[in-house]
Amino acid sequence: MDDRAIGVFDSGVGGLTAVRELIRRLPGEDVVYFGDTGRVPYGSRGVETIIKYARQDVAFLRSFDLKAVVIACGTVSTTALDILAQENSLPVIGVVEPAARAAVAATRTGKIGLVGTKTTIASGAYERTVRRLMPQAEVTARACPLFVPLVENGRYQPGDPLVELLVAEYLAPFKEAEVDTLILGCTHYPLLRDAIAAYLGEGVTLISSGAACVDTVAELLEAQGLKNAKTQGGEHLYFASDSAQDFGALASIFLGQDIQGQVRQIAIENY
Amino acid sequence: MDDRAIGVFDSGVGGLTAVRELIRRLPGEDVVYFGDTGRVPYGSRGVETIIKYARQDVAFLRSFDLKAVVIACGTVSTTALDILAQENSLPVIGVVEPAARAAVAATRTGKIGLVGTKTTIASGAYERTVRRLMPQAEVTARACPLFVPLVENGRYQPGDPLVELLVAEYLAPFKEAEVDTLILGCTHYPLLRDAIAAYLGEGVTLISSGAACVDTVAELLEAQGLKNAKTQGGEHLYFASDSAQDFGALASIFLGQDIQGQVRQIAIENY
Repeated sequence: MDDRAIGVFDSGVGGLTAVRELIRRLPGEDVVYFGDTGRVPYGSRGVETIIKYARQDVAFLRSFDLKAVVIACGTVSTTALDILAQENSLPVIGVVEPAARAAVAATRTGKIGLVGTKTTIASGAYERTVRRLMPQAEVTARACPLFVPLVENGRYQPGDPLVELLVAEYLAPFKEAEVDTLILGCTHYPLLRDAIAAYLGEGVTLISSGAACVDTVAELLEAQGLKNAKTQGGEHLYFASDSAQDFGALASIFLGQDIQGQVRQIAIENY
Repeated sequence: MDDRAIGVFDSGVGGLTAVRELIRRLPGEDVVYFGDTGRVPYGSRGVETIIKYARQDVAFLRSFDLKAVVIACGTVSTTALDILAQENSLPVIGVVEPAARAAVAATRTGKIGLVGTKTTIASGAYERTVRRLMPQAEVTARACPLFVPLVENGRYQPGDPLVELLVAEYLAPFKEAEVDTLILGCTHYPLLRDAIAAYLGEGVTLISSGAACVDTVAELLEAQGLKNAKTQGGEHLYFASDSAQDFGALASIFLGQDIQGQVRQIAIENY
């Protein structure tokens, strides 16, 4: 048993889709979440900048006594996971390996698609991991740089002409390639799940990278005897680097519960 | 005569549309530009965060010996101009007053439209300034939160279905209101000028806030005897808070000239 909290961070509110799954699966665990809303988005920034920001995010989270850190951000997982894991003496869990494993388990044809931010796709990290697990896999990858701004502006409902236009534009190559599994390699994308599913049709399994990494967290806690003594009633703390009020308003959409008034703002550049 | 440089800053590359006009109009002036590409966009962030970032931007620019600072950013001009002007002992020029003056001079019917970021529109600064100059003006304002991500991703050409869809969605109220003048209240928006003009038709005058503020800079230098002794060959320095290479690539589109290799990266949070 280990009653310390699990730290989770993301560039903004997208990582809350992973926290939502974490709370559902492991309701007794305490969670400290940091969303870097003062510097979102990460996915269009340079690699050195992303590494700098990610180090500060982890340094802030580690001002709490943690048993593990979850990188609920596709961009950081693909560009800085190894560095963060080396620099920290506790388990650091990203979204790439879990999502790749879930995709390999789900595919029947070996034709796997991947969507993510510009930096995530440029890193090639998902493809390398999928091919390591399944050498014969055919991976089709595409950056969808406008999906994050779309979601952050509340535009993700099926039937919204803007959403349908962008989904069709970005996902046409996956229809062409006849993938049977698509990795949503950015934690913002699950909000677009209905629109993406409607476009690709029922034959395509969608893998949410945030939800997949919660499987890995659960396995780790079980295997290493790190589960919280509580099985219900975990405490959840939320921090953001921009307005706490703005974060609270948007967070309720991603988290599926109202946390207005429970968010505190911090100055991330001081970490 | 005053041979000191003019400092110009923006949240990212958008302010280069003002620098382009500055170089054209005042080719002898030295210019130091800072684009906060490590923290762009500003327009969706909270007011306190924008003020903090803007103070750091000015502090960096003032590490050079300047004769004036230009805020080539609609969001900062509408939320932090007064604070920055109070805290600094040199002229600080924003985009609001110049653009409002240009719009009032251009309108025949008094029906003026305004587009800008969420924070800019929420501030009400443009409307207040227009009504001060022209009390009978009818101002229609609308936030266009997806225009900046669109432009930053290189999507601004007329004929692009995504551009046409968003322009039509955001600008329909201005057709309805029969404005004869539209203020482009964000320095990213001039790249969308052709698409906006095609949608609104020839009867509507488009006011670029960045270009308008250069008029004010020229008047100030003239009136206060601050012009550079040179009339040609001004030196231009470019700084960014994210990758210099990425800035250089995007900057050439906004500036209309290639500055690859002339950009340096700085750590803005240290200022």
